[in-house]
Amino acid sequence: MKGALYLVPTPLDFGVDPAPLDMALPAHTLVQAAQLTHWITENAKSTRGFLKRVGESQPLAAPLQAQQIVELPREVHKKGDHGPGGFDAKPLLAPALTGHDVGLVSEAGMPAIADPGASVVRAAHELGLRVVPLVGPVSLMLALAASGLNGQHFAFVGYLPQDAAARSTRIRELEALALKTGQTQICIETPYRNEVLLKALQQGLHPHTRLAVMANASLPSVAVHSALVSQWKKSPPNLPLSAPAVFLFGR
Amino acid sequence: MKGALYLVPTPLDFGVDPAPLDMALPAHTLVQAAQLTHWITENAKSTRGFLKRVGESQPLAAPLQAQQIVELPREVHKKGDHGPGGFDAKPLLAPALTGHDVGLVSEAGMPAIADPGASVVRAAHELGLRVVPLVGPVSLMLALAASGLNGQHFAFVGYLPQDAAARSTRIRELEALALKTGQTQICIETPYRNEVLLKALQQGLHPHTRLAVMANASLPSVAVHSALVSQWKKSPPNLPLSAPAVFLFGR
Repeated sequence: MKGALYLVPTPLDFGVDPAPLDMALPAHTLVQAAQLTHWITENAKSTRGFLKRVGESQPLAAPLQAQQIVELPREVHKKGDHGPGGFDAKPLLAPALTGHDVGLVSEAGMPAIADPGASVVRAAHELGLRVVPLVGPVSLMLALAASGLNGQHFAFVGYLPQDAAARSTRIRELEALALKTGQTQICIETPYRNEVLLKALQQGLHPHTRLAVMANASLPSVAVHSALVSQWKKSPPNLPLSAPAVFLFGR
Repeated sequence: MKGALYLVPTPLDFGVDPAPLDMALPAHTLVQAAQLTHWITENAKSTRGFLKRVGESQPLAAPLQAQQIVELPREVHKKGDHGPGGFDAKPLLAPALTGHDVGLVSEAGMPAIADPGASVVRAAHELGLRVVPLVGPVSLMLALAASGLNGQHFAFVGYLPQDAAARSTRIRELEALALKTGQTQICIETPYRNEVLLKALQQGLHPHTRLAVMANASLPSVAVHSALVSQWKKSPPNLPLSAPAVFLFGR
């Protein structure tokens, strides 16, 4: 009997000023996570921190030092691991072939969404393992719901180019698509470049395009601002942009 | 002092064979929902059913019969309510202007994502209300994470055309985009047409395209199948397609 692959979401707080986990995750997610003893992760240290927090609300099936935690290789963090011909994660799932359930986690939020992990899920399907996604926060969707933009047609486009000219071109291209089709465009940035991206969006987008930003995606200090670009310029909000943020625009 | 708009997610079980809510939603979501007494919803009856379940794990701020529940107009259910020039939801938010926090809910999952509600969020921003998204299940993201498809670049395109020829054309168009850019394409269908859509995807997509389906999005009976189209044809899985499902494809 093969084990299953559980996709275990983590809170968005990155362990900074953390609330008890049972405030951030449904009990079912915590119960399932506490039963696992084998993990695949971006970072073993933060996964141990997460498991310590899980253990505060649910007894762990194995003590922290007995948990088997393997890290995805560095190349996957940088280049992503989606698509064929990339990283082969099947060897990481060996414990599942001998009956152990395995958990996949990322640094924050849902694994394999705006984060590595897809290679592990693909490998699980190829090995015939059951794949079980558990409920938890997805910052992109919290931002989309709170933006007031079209949630019936949207795209997540990841990071925009860092080069200023290439970024402007990309912004205009995405805006044209959004205005023509109604598809909301969602992007993210490395926190220390959030301010630069926000300025570029305000400069590059049409005054009548709606721009929304969710700052401090880590609950409960979340702040969402959504307005036409012309209004952003007239009365700039005071948003805390040093933490992960989500940027969205459309008509 | 104005009230805030809380975006309150509901479980994916549509009240059928329901697990206790504190298994499906984080405690923070339940605590916040229990404090609200004013609601905007697609369907008042199912919202009362939801509040009854909330009340089983958290004391409600007002008894069920004293809760103020207003429904979005029928036109919004059918045509959606995103984009400018559509439904003006500001009058529905009148209680917030006199200091009441207001909750927005949909039938299942996160309001305003693959469901109406965007008009209410936009109106809240226009009225200067704080908008607070709460954590809960988003079936599209559970499906995406569990698909093994690219979660760093994806689009939700809603429903495909019902006409067979128009649907084929749209499938080929979306596949071309997915293969060219790596963008995973996500769509949904009315449950009684799930079988038809699955067949159309298997016929219309290239044998080497990856196709994934999450059936029975309502936990815990969720079933996810992800394989190349050629493999779907060779060994067809037995998926329960009478409940809401999510369809995904890409490279």
